[in-house]
Amino acid sequence: MPVNLTPPKPEDLLPVGGLALGVAEAGVRKAQRKDLLVMRLAEGASVAGVFTQNRFCAAPVSVCKEHLALAKPVRALLVNTGNANAGTGEDGLARARRCCSELAAALDCERSQILPFSTGVIMEPLPVERIVAALPHALADCREDNWARAAEAIMTTDTVPKACSRRLSLGGKSVTVTGIAKGAGMIHPDMATMLGFVATDAAVSPAALQRMLAHAAARSFNRITVDGDTSTNDSFMLIATGAAGTQTIPGESHPDYAVLAAAVTEVATWLAQAIIRDGEGASKFITVQIEGGGNEAECSKVAYAIAHSPLVKTAFFASDPNLGRLLAAIGYAGIADLDVGRVQLYLDEVRVVRDGGRDPAYREEDGQRVMQQSEITVRVELGRGAAQTTLWTCDLSHDYVSINADYRS
Amino acid sequence: MPVNLTPPKPEDLLPVGGLALGVAEAGVRKAQRKDLLVMRLAEGASVAGVFTQNRFCAAPVSVCKEHLALAKPVRALLVNTGNANAGTGEDGLARARRCCSELAAALDCERSQILPFSTGVIMEPLPVERIVAALPHALADCREDNWARAAEAIMTTDTVPKACSRRLSLGGKSVTVTGIAKGAGMIHPDMATMLGFVATDAAVSPAALQRMLAHAAARSFNRITVDGDTSTNDSFMLIATGAAGTQTIPGESHPDYAVLAAAVTEVATWLAQAIIRDGEGASKFITVQIEGGGNEAECSKVAYAIAHSPLVKTAFFASDPNLGRLLAAIGYAGIADLDVGRVQLYLDEVRVVRDGGRDPAYREEDGQRVMQQSEITVRVELGRGAAQTTLWTCDLSHDYVSINADYRS
Repeated sequence: MPVNLTPPKPEDLLPVGGLALGVAEAGVRKAQRKDLLVMRLAEGASVAGVFTQNRFCAAPVSVCKEHLALAKPVRALLVNTGNANAGTGEDGLARARRCCSELAAALDCERSQILPFSTGVIMEPLPVERIVAALPHALADCREDNWARAAEAIMTTDTVPKACSRRLSLGGKSVTVTGIAKGAGMIHPDMATMLGFVATDAAVSPAALQRMLAHAAARSFNRITVDGDTSTNDSFMLIATGAAGTQTIPGESHPDYAVLAAAVTEVATWLAQAIIRDGEGASKFITVQIEGGGNEAECSKVAYAIAHSPLVKTAFFASDPNLGRLLAAIGYAGIADLDVGRVQLYLDEVRVVRDGGRDPAYREEDGQRVMQQSEITVRVELGRGAAQTTLWTCDLSHDYVSINADYRS
Repeated sequence: MPVNLTPPKPEDLLPVGGLALGVAEAGVRKAQRKDLLVMRLAEGASVAGVFTQNRFCAAPVSVCKEHLALAKPVRALLVNTGNANAGTGEDGLARARRCCSELAAALDCERSQILPFSTGVIMEPLPVERIVAALPHALADCREDNWARAAEAIMTTDTVPKACSRRLSLGGKSVTVTGIAKGAGMIHPDMATMLGFVATDAAVSPAALQRMLAHAAARSFNRITVDGDTSTNDSFMLIATGAAGTQTIPGESHPDYAVLAAAVTEVATWLAQAIIRDGEGASKFITVQIEGGGNEAECSKVAYAIAHSPLVKTAFFASDPNLGRLLAAIGYAGIADLDVGRVQLYLDEVRVVRDGGRDPAYREEDGQRVMQQSEITVRVELGRGAAQTTLWTCDLSHDYVSINADYRS
């Protein structure tokens, strides 16, 4: 059961002018489920992307980067689930390119104007024929008000589709930002998440769009972890169609930039948190907040040490204030000159550790009360400086093991 | 159920002259279980130790280092389970020192001649009174042939006591090496493991003993991980009583050094592997062997990325050759310039990945066959150089979650 996350209502997802979405059942891995998504872009749209830093990056990630580097106008994004087309070598690249060529032929454009995305099982050959056969169905299904079905079509072990919209005003014109994402396991995005697509009908130059994307990624998808496993297929794309008729935002100094960037970051953050709420086996949504660090990098080390510790995560699952496990994680996070005598630790507002030792005023029942909540903030003060960071994670439950022991069966 | 590990037979554990062990039930955390161990040393014994690098190191670790630094002859080691005396600040140090003082009084020596060790729950006050009350019972129980009961007395979530002996010949004299260890969770030793004690009746100078200990630790306890959590209490001690009457080994250049070091390393490796075989919830014993690295550090990065990945570990639990998870872990291990096209991956003798992609000759049933075994070797060739490393780990099972969700209840 996801933590405080319900499926989006289709009527809450605002269409983005200039972007039509169509889904189909290609039977990539399983029959009778939507597993193919085509996102068609009107002329004039800009697209920016960030991708996994995993050295075994998937074939579609390589092809995507290749195509984006050519800087031709993007006409469509093609997404399949059920197969990641990763760890597939040269053959995988050829298969990803084949899918792009076939869609390009149908849209009368060049192959490099198609961006491919895959997610699913690693190291199995992509069933190109089945995908190609389903393309006409996906194209026929293309509509601007199809975001809810698109969010559903990109799910793998997700239990809830993830999508949200925001509306803002730029230069007196109404502008929409709508996004979808998928991911529940192999979630420790490094530059991006499993798959995230956010679109706006504002007009933004490619350079400004790429900066806006990096800004949003750093504050959203790059601040979450389920299991510490960085995926081979992480891709986070930001699309600006310009259909709202607003003035083109040329760069960061333009007054509209900050307004739109805030809305994009808000949508990306909502989606990133939704991934954690629906993390494999998650029963708790945990915010890890590190303050008082000498720099942001050391805050991140402590935050990830806590968020990746199986002992910390199982304690959250059990609602057990076994808080020594938190101290141990802080201690091994890699700050060699950490003065533990300056460390404070809070669970929500309850101070557990004062100056490196158990707070004499701490009562087990207070810790117990916070641990039983479905949303918990762990806050650590390092007492070394003014840097801070926040990330979001979930607990480690029996269901996590079940899901991942059974995933392929 | 531990993986291919049975309790030691008391008669297989060889006494070490000059070292007597006594256990007692102090009721530190639970009643009616052996939770206190005293190891008394005859005069002339040398003791060396390595300790956790966790910044939140436990009070007994700090006191141990303090006492060793004074270089007075060690008269006894005092070990309790049920309480780690970690994250306890100044009060914890005072409690650890109290225990040492009381034992020193009983043995008519100075406090600094006692070395304290604790393991158990973190961040709770050590019940000094109960420990002190049990000391006379432990002292009365001291015998040289008490290793089996000692191994039992230091268990926490261990399901099997861990102990082994080796006999060798030095300068025509028979020499014994016997060791015990405990640990099943919070196992990712950094310099040492939870608790390990190895003793020999050979005579070794303190400096040579410390080198021998570091050599053994680097090849045994520092090459294992259950959950990536580095404990606050890791301590690995090597004791040389000299009771066998052998010539004192003054340093590494002495011909006996290598012979004894090999035996000590063999005992330490057996104990370290026993910790993995009895890892919390373990159903598989996994050897991770990385070859062809540019240096040992990058081999270690890849080995630990594999050994810590919850997705890899749950796949082992499920006997599921979902080997893309291994590729993903290799890819995010942190070798920025890894050429994945040169990576080979083997499960035992089965080649799964050739030149970065699925080996065309690989058949799922071959992977399946290996994955069903209780002992599996994952071998990765990086194709970058001649460095290599090996470590041992276990799978991630439902029982791991159960054990750690219920630990304090």
